[in-house]
Amino acid sequence: MSLNFCFIGAGNLATQLSKVFKNKGFGITQVYSRTEQSAKTLADLLNAKYTTSIHEIDKKADIYFVALKDSVVDEVLSQINFENKLVVHCSGSLPLSCLEKYSDNIGVFYPLQTFSKDRKIDFQEIPVFIESNSEKNENILLQIARELSDSVFVLNSEKRKMLHISAVFACNFVNHFYTIAFDILKSKDIPFEVLRPLILETAKKVQQFEPEKVQTGPAVRFDENIINSHLNELNDFGDYQQLYRLISKSIFDRYNK
Amino acid sequence: MSLNFCFIGAGNLATQLSKVFKNKGFGITQVYSRTEQSAKTLADLLNAKYTTSIHEIDKKADIYFVALKDSVVDEVLSQINFENKLVVHCSGSLPLSCLEKYSDNIGVFYPLQTFSKDRKIDFQEIPVFIESNSEKNENILLQIARELSDSVFVLNSEKRKMLHISAVFACNFVNHFYTIAFDILKSKDIPFEVLRPLILETAKKVQQFEPEKVQTGPAVRFDENIINSHLNELNDFGDYQQLYRLISKSIFDRYNK
Repeated sequence: MSLNFCFIGAGNLATQLSKVFKNKGFGITQVYSRTEQSAKTLADLLNAKYTTSIHEIDKKADIYFVALKDSVVDEVLSQINFENKLVVHCSGSLPLSCLEKYSDNIGVFYPLQTFSKDRKIDFQEIPVFIESNSEKNENILLQIARELSDSVFVLNSEKRKMLHISAVFACNFVNHFYTIAFDILKSKDIPFEVLRPLILETAKKVQQFEPEKVQTGPAVRFDENIINSHLNELNDFGDYQQLYRLISKSIFDRYNK
Repeated sequence: MSLNFCFIGAGNLATQLSKVFKNKGFGITQVYSRTEQSAKTLADLLNAKYTTSIHEIDKKADIYFVALKDSVVDEVLSQINFENKLVVHCSGSLPLSCLEKYSDNIGVFYPLQTFSKDRKIDFQEIPVFIESNSEKNENILLQIARELSDSVFVLNSEKRKMLHISAVFACNFVNHFYTIAFDILKSKDIPFEVLRPLILETAKKVQQFEPEKVQTGPAVRFDENIINSHLNELNDFGDYQQLYRLISKSIFDRYNK
């Protein structure tokens, strides 16, 4: 397929996605971002043009990929006339319908992964979830997605939202718990390094098993002595103590129904 | 070193640890467990004897490894006369001093990993934390640990306890979050499979970076629209909604101080 894309947004997701599109032979004509530095950095990387002016957005792109923070999508898109070209957002939580007022051809292209600008990612393994308002548009997006990834699914907005919530728990909240562990270790001058094998093994275990089958630790054993002595040590750690208590209770309740 | 060990306890940790000891050429003379099936299963695996009677514990072992649930350690050990042989527990949270009344030679051998009976583990990469009441005993335990692992540390009881707490967050609580994600997906008939690459990447990221440097998601961006719409979807999910709220707040507070 010889298609030209315009990227609206230049954050982590836009960066990773546009890079892999370019590698797969798609054209990236232009990058738009309100922040000049972000727009320029990504455009340079892609050998594309960039703009910070919404009125200079390229009219000749075939597909517009919207990779903005959800809360600014309306503000930005309402200023663009897409002339009914295919407009696609990349958000887990926004419904497809939020694009209805901006074009007759709309879709969602949601790659389920955590993107950091500095980390290389094998896109082939990332599940991509597609939704669209017509079979024709769906097929276009499916074809594009299959160029990038081995696991492409059609998923409606309602299900995609629940998928996103599950990802918040399994990724964003998990990473926060790595950070809490980091903070606790730091209080005793223990390097985070020593936890890394445990973190990796915990993630690898659930590649093979269902997570509820491999739950370990004091809470699932209902080892009250340990739980209470841990809570005691967390007196000076603010909300970490409350989180420890609630999650231990949540684990206990789940396995002792 | 030609040393013979007796294992008191036959759970996940005892199983994994005794197996790797045997592979490294140490002798396992006997396994004790109150549960005959556990004792027999592990003893068969090790080609060792077993007993369920505390009064039949082998007097000729060089070192006694205590791998019991913390809350039953005292109950079991108080019935054994160790004749001042080296007695070692494997607990993250129990202090070394809890062994003082049972022998003059005591130590701690704490491998930091999550053990499941059915999963093969490369012990070489697992950090092992040693503590003892004399230099002589410490050296014995260091030597044994270095046969198994490339990362061996001496760590006192107070620091080990904080290490254990950090591991509860980074492993046990993290696995519970995988389970919550599983439950949320299941409510919409989405297979857990689709989350596995994200889970693995989240753990791999912090092998390379510090976790606070790679925090992503709605909470760190303070995307209130998404947070509120997610909370709304979690109305029927009991404590998962409360956890979502508190952890989002915890993330927000940490990055917006």
